[in-house]
Amino acid sequence: MKSWRFHGTGKPLTLDEVPEPQAGPGEVVVEVKAAGVCHSDVSALDDRGWMPLFFRIPMTLGHENAGVVVEVGEGMDRWKVGDRVGLAPVMPDGDAIGYGAWDGGFGPRLRATDANLVRLPDEVSFELGAMATDAGLTAYHAMVSVGGAAKGKKVGVIGLGGLGYIGARVAVLLGAEVYAAEVNQKTRELAHEIGLADVAESIGEFKDEGLELIVDYAGFGTTTAAAIETLAEFGTLVQVGMGRLEATVNTYPIIINQLTVKGSKSGTKADLEALYALMRSGDLNPPMNLITQAEIPDALGRLRAGGVVGRFIARYGD
Amino acid sequence: MKSWRFHGTGKPLTLDEVPEPQAGPGEVVVEVKAAGVCHSDVSALDDRGWMPLFFRIPMTLGHENAGVVVEVGEGMDRWKVGDRVGLAPVMPDGDAIGYGAWDGGFGPRLRATDANLVRLPDEVSFELGAMATDAGLTAYHAMVSVGGAAKGKKVGVIGLGGLGYIGARVAVLLGAEVYAAEVNQKTRELAHEIGLADVAESIGEFKDEGLELIVDYAGFGTTTAAAIETLAEFGTLVQVGMGRLEATVNTYPIIINQLTVKGSKSGTKADLEALYALMRSGDLNPPMNLITQAEIPDALGRLRAGGVVGRFIARYGD
Repeated sequence: MKSWRFHGTGKPLTLDEVPEPQAGPGEVVVEVKAAGVCHSDVSALDDRGWMPLFFRIPMTLGHENAGVVVEVGEGMDRWKVGDRVGLAPVMPDGDAIGYGAWDGGFGPRLRATDANLVRLPDEVSFELGAMATDAGLTAYHAMVSVGGAAKGKKVGVIGLGGLGYIGARVAVLLGAEVYAAEVNQKTRELAHEIGLADVAESIGEFKDEGLELIVDYAGFGTTTAAAIETLAEFGTLVQVGMGRLEATVNTYPIIINQLTVKGSKSGTKADLEALYALMRSGDLNPPMNLITQAEIPDALGRLRAGGVVGRFIARYGD
Repeated sequence: MKSWRFHGTGKPLTLDEVPEPQAGPGEVVVEVKAAGVCHSDVSALDDRGWMPLFFRIPMTLGHENAGVVVEVGEGMDRWKVGDRVGLAPVMPDGDAIGYGAWDGGFGPRLRATDANLVRLPDEVSFELGAMATDAGLTAYHAMVSVGGAAKGKKVGVIGLGGLGYIGARVAVLLGAEVYAAEVNQKTRELAHEIGLADVAESIGEFKDEGLELIVDYAGFGTTTAAAIETLAEFGTLVQVGMGRLEATVNTYPIIINQLTVKGSKSGTKADLEALYALMRSGDLNPPMNLITQAEIPDALGRLRAGGVVGRFIARYGD
């Protein structure tokens, strides 16, 4: 089969002929139906600092995948051929699909273990299922598992990009009262369609709303500082975005209002299951750009250039 | 009776003749045996911003008190004459002894309610009991109730001043492995007597120790930043000190190490009970400077000048 393979920092992906994977004991082979293209893939290509994440070279990238089980290895009795699945990339030992030693979804088939597999409900498309495994998972984990968003809670969202859009929409679907901050005016206009209570340029404009939780998906330092000044007493700020890694904050409201600031990264298999359950309603539809496997390098180039709205999702077998 | 009374910002305390308090329904009168003198009292005298805290003028200051119940009002059946008590200053409605509308311990008797009263064990002196109600309570709340210090936990303490000394010692007595940072070399030398695993000039020197909890009793911004760079994965920083209210921090370790930062202020009656229980061992003896009621204004002047080691505690009736 033909897979886009990573040969090291600064080298282009090449479409190499590689053997079809076989399911070892406790493993399955998944036929990839949809694979997301992530900004992390651009970083892996461009930034030498990412090399230690790859346990061997060449490697097939692609850590956002959904597909169908086509082969089941010895001793694997929880999954069967034909199961629709999404793949949580990270494994308990810290290894991950599309990094480490496990080839990813920029090729048509991949090996996975029970630690990765989450049943994809029939109502959820492979494209949405793939998108959910990284951007969706990270956004959901921060908003719900770390932040505790729930019905009736007053929630702020900073940034309505890839993660923030999902985080905001998840909070709305859970019944929270959601206020969003977004610097891009066009994105602010779209925001009225997704059930927000209000949207503004800065989260500080909602200081009088008594926000109990703010999730900062942008992370530009100034956003962290504004969130701390805006939260109600005993409020929580969840920090996810890493737009700029230095934040100058006022510690007075942290102490006097007894705030909590928590960092959040990635998410768990349980988060992905919960997110898929929420997606069954059909009400969570983040913007996507559908492409073919052949267009993956082009999509990476466009992500590198910046300004892309919506996740690139490569579809196989159309 | 003669009480030191506050007449407004910028005016000296004066020793006025005031009527002895009477216990109203649900109240007691406490004969004050020991009253702590706090830097907050200096702020109240000097800083106009504190005036809204006082619901009437003149007021008797003094929010760190211990003594003996000498009168019991109608319907108060939980306390009796002769009970040794410490007084948690803050009331459920936000009012407080020595602020708000309730006269404090810079006079020989005061009114209090069940919300304030905590039994003072026979093994704990009135002086220690008074000191515990504010500095002790705040230090304990941050270290245990917010920070979760416990046996076997690796704990960092920043600043070994009034609060930090107590916080560090509480953690040691609970069986934690405690590493402290203190800029003053003389204080560092003393630190070896209180059971610390190690002491250094900056908390960053303990980066390899895997600290799970750091309590910053100094709060100089640089201390907050250093704590965030030092904590182990999933670690917690509790921010108490307000030495300088601006902190420039690196958000990368907050996110990647999934840290929690929590603000902590004051404490509860339950905290004070727990602290008294710990003090019964006789092993928690923060430095104190014993004075008389007559010396309270002088002690305030010395606190204003700075550089004081140990809490000023005024004793009555010697």
